[in-house]
Amino acid sequence: MDAEFDARLGACAEAVERTLDALLGPEPLAGEIARPERLVAAMRYATLGGGKRLRPFLLVESARLFDVEGEGPLRAGAALEMAHCYSLAHDDLPAMDDDDLRRGRPTLHKAQDEATAILAGDALLTYAFDVLADERTHPDPAVRIALTLGLARAGGLGGMAGGQMLDLQAEGRYGAAEALGEGDVRRLQAMKTGALLAYAVEAGAILGGADSDDRAALSAYGRALGAAFQVADDILDVESSADALGKATGKDAGRGKATLVGALGLAEAKAERDRLALAAELALAGFGPEADVLRAAARFSVERRS
Amino acid sequence: MDAEFDARLGACAEAVERTLDALLGPEPLAGEIARPERLVAAMRYATLGGGKRLRPFLLVESARLFDVEGEGPLRAGAALEMAHCYSLAHDDLPAMDDDDLRRGRPTLHKAQDEATAILAGDALLTYAFDVLADERTHPDPAVRIALTLGLARAGGLGGMAGGQMLDLQAEGRYGAAEALGEGDVRRLQAMKTGALLAYAVEAGAILGGADSDDRAALSAYGRALGAAFQVADDILDVESSADALGKATGKDAGRGKATLVGALGLAEAKAERDRLALAAELALAGFGPEADVLRAAARFSVERRS
Repeated sequence: MDAEFDARLGACAEAVERTLDALLGPEPLAGEIARPERLVAAMRYATLGGGKRLRPFLLVESARLFDVEGEGPLRAGAALEMAHCYSLAHDDLPAMDDDDLRRGRPTLHKAQDEATAILAGDALLTYAFDVLADERTHPDPAVRIALTLGLARAGGLGGMAGGQMLDLQAEGRYGAAEALGEGDVRRLQAMKTGALLAYAVEAGAILGGADSDDRAALSAYGRALGAAFQVADDILDVESSADALGKATGKDAGRGKATLVGALGLAEAKAERDRLALAAELALAGFGPEADVLRAAARFSVERRS
Repeated sequence: MDAEFDARLGACAEAVERTLDALLGPEPLAGEIARPERLVAAMRYATLGGGKRLRPFLLVESARLFDVEGEGPLRAGAALEMAHCYSLAHDDLPAMDDDDLRRGRPTLHKAQDEATAILAGDALLTYAFDVLADERTHPDPAVRIALTLGLARAGGLGGMAGGQMLDLQAEGRYGAAEALGEGDVRRLQAMKTGALLAYAVEAGAILGGADSDDRAALSAYGRALGAAFQVADDILDVESSADALGKATGKDAGRGKATLVGALGLAEAKAERDRLALAAELALAGFGPEADVLRAAARFSVERRS
């Protein structure tokens, strides 16, 4: 599976790159007055040229379980990646995590400036909803509205944006740093990174027209994978080099970031990471070999080096 | 009409306030993990307690033309107001327009901090799409998807976000200040403020199930009103006091902001403002007295003192 997995992951990343490139072209859509060149360039910088595209991959492969392929899942995957990249651009800002390096390149506000980074993030988030709501993503409005609502819930105050707020609070910038217990760290991570990863799988199930049993199974898979991914991230921050990761490392502890490594210790965090990855695989027990690629994705999420 | 108009505007503002208050409660929705108190408080600060609520009013009154009233238009109006308030919170940031005062109160990043203001804006934008996509706004998914797509086009890189980018460029912060001609100023303003005002009317027509003739007429009305509103704003910045306006005045010229007062001179800008307000009224020629409140809204948009 590993060679086939790598090939499929790479092929999907290329297809998502092409889709993003086409969506972020210079020509305005109907209903748009004009596309300012500087803003388009910043949105392209924030989204193109890198990344494993794990979220779109999970979406595309979840839809493929139900034999749905092609433009629809790729557009939804590109929208999801825009939402992910908007959050990175905003989280990197000086007022937030103040990061200079992302995917081995200067972060957007370093390459351009803060105002452009804020606006490009805003425009990417908005465009993600545009792409999901457009009929080219799926002919049925009910499917598109389910995709839209899912992204809003995963990305909003009760999901990704809320998780970043909790993360900043845990650092102690609004009073004494809170030493979060394991349960609080898990909830924070389920919001900050888990919700969007789980949505990737959910969106694939929506596009695939999955029945409620299959949706529940995929939802459990997505949540476990999201949690496993974040523990792996915490461990990478401790163990990897900035060179391999393409961004600064060892910063979590220095900032007092809430991590499961901090709450559990390194050895137990690794055990938990592996348990979660296994739980993700086991959630797919009702599927046959057609789900092998998703099982491999669960392993990949915890075995990656960057 | 004037007393009745004031009463209806005030009643709508109260109903929108109640709707926002209910939507921004402490309890998470299905699909949300938790609502961080600090983020909810910031979103409430940015949206509650003030404002004429002109955008929701235009939406509610446009829907009412077709006898559609109640929770649906109010929810859509609240979503629209969230999108408007997110843009204010981000535009006020130090990296953007660096404003300390808004509606007579400290701006969000002054009352809280920059990170909270960025996140609250992000969460408000996301929640606006959530509210539009939710079935309580309208039972028909096709109607909800049209509302969603409309907001995405009006708010994104070819609309409000793009307009703010052009505005920053016109100030000269990315090279020499550009002395914009009248046509460029009009395009910039159509994006930055006109698109969302026009969307307010369009959304009302969508909720009302307007036929294509009525939609075209309301669309022309919305565009003219949006343009009139912005010229009036430019004039207020020159002529009004900070006290009456609840925000700093006289800043446009100091910053080299692109305004029609700058492009045309004050007297001609006033004539243009009145022409545009009249054009908005004339676009409603096909409607009877049921549209009088929208005609009054066009006059109100240019006669307001704040």
